[in-house]
Amino acid sequence: MLGLKLPTDPRWVNLAEKQISEVLIDHAFCEQKAATSCITLIQSYPDKKELVKRLTPVVTEEWEHFRMVLQKLEEYGVPLGFQRKDEYVNGLLKFERKGGSRESRLVERLLTCALIEARSCERFRLLSRELRDEELRKFYHGLMASEAGHYRMFLDLAILYGEGREQVMARWDEFLKYEAELLASMTPRGDRVH
Amino acid sequence: MLGLKLPTDPRWVNLAEKQISEVLIDHAFCEQKAATSCITLIQSYPDKKELVKRLTPVVTEEWEHFRMVLQKLEEYGVPLGFQRKDEYVNGLLKFERKGGSRESRLVERLLTCALIEARSCERFRLLSRELRDEELRKFYHGLMASEAGHYRMFLDLAILYGEGREQVMARWDEFLKYEAELLASMTPRGDRVH
Repeated sequence: MLGLKLPTDPRWVNLAEKQISEVLIDHAFCEQKAATSCITLIQSYPDKKELVKRLTPVVTEEWEHFRMVLQKLEEYGVPLGFQRKDEYVNGLLKFERKGGSRESRLVERLLTCALIEARSCERFRLLSRELRDEELRKFYHGLMASEAGHYRMFLDLAILYGEGREQVMARWDEFLKYEAELLASMTPRGDRVH
Repeated sequence: MLGLKLPTDPRWVNLAEKQISEVLIDHAFCEQKAATSCITLIQSYPDKKELVKRLTPVVTEEWEHFRMVLQKLEEYGVPLGFQRKDEYVNGLLKFERKGGSRESRLVERLLTCALIEARSCERFRLLSRELRDEELRKFYHGLMASEAGHYRMFLDLAILYGEGREQVMARWDEFLKYEAELLASMTPRGDRVH
């Protein structure tokens, strides 16, 4: 359903379970970055009415998730700690075409966002099925549904602002292939969401 | 109550009333910048527990305000438009001491934030009293109370992370004096919140 070309290494969820505090800290910053990147899109493209309309509530939602993760950390007695280098997202950003028109750069960024949401959704699904802690399973089940909705929204917006559905979907396929290669090149880490 | 050393030029509110769409657009971006600057503080100082705890709900609140202003623009049939150069905020940022410890830079930024909230509160108060449109008067009355709360919070945080209340309040006084001079040097503009 998400179109991802490489399922997550099954060892990841076991590694993550052993370092769940680290995953939660990384996750908190993922939600924060998601909120920030929507704000940046609104700031850069305030003239795109549909984009502003669709992304504005997403900022509220992502920030609410940040607060929920913060609350989980509090329950676990784990301090937030500092943001880590995000190898996965930095890798994806390298794939974006930097030149071209304002619209084509927007489409590239929307596809990057769609990809991050899709992969997060897949990872949250694993956590929601495999973790032993029932509370955490439920927690990730709820977040999974939300990420799936965002993935679809970013893809819809990319189609809306791109030069035709077919061209956008062809580029999306390139993104999916690149992401699979990127992930395959990375050692699975139990202290990261991605 | 807010400690500001120069009341807003009484002509401002009349100018603003004539260009209320422009004020609303500028206001939308002020709320957005307020949300972003809280997120940046959390990102830079995740180790300051009280700061994270106090600023996290403020992001939700500022973003909610952004959405409210967006809704007002929608009602008025005014498109959001692009963000403008913020002469006032850029002027304030120049006054911050850039060197010193991490904590002292934090205090400088918190005082800048407190100042922007105080001035916004004063301006919203004027709008809430002087505008002819009753709906808008109510709108700004509600926002005024919120800005006053944020002003107090930023000042409290500055005192918490500074080297003693007295020293922070002395620096606050310097900020207030500088802000009065900055404002006096600027031509009142009816298309800006500040």
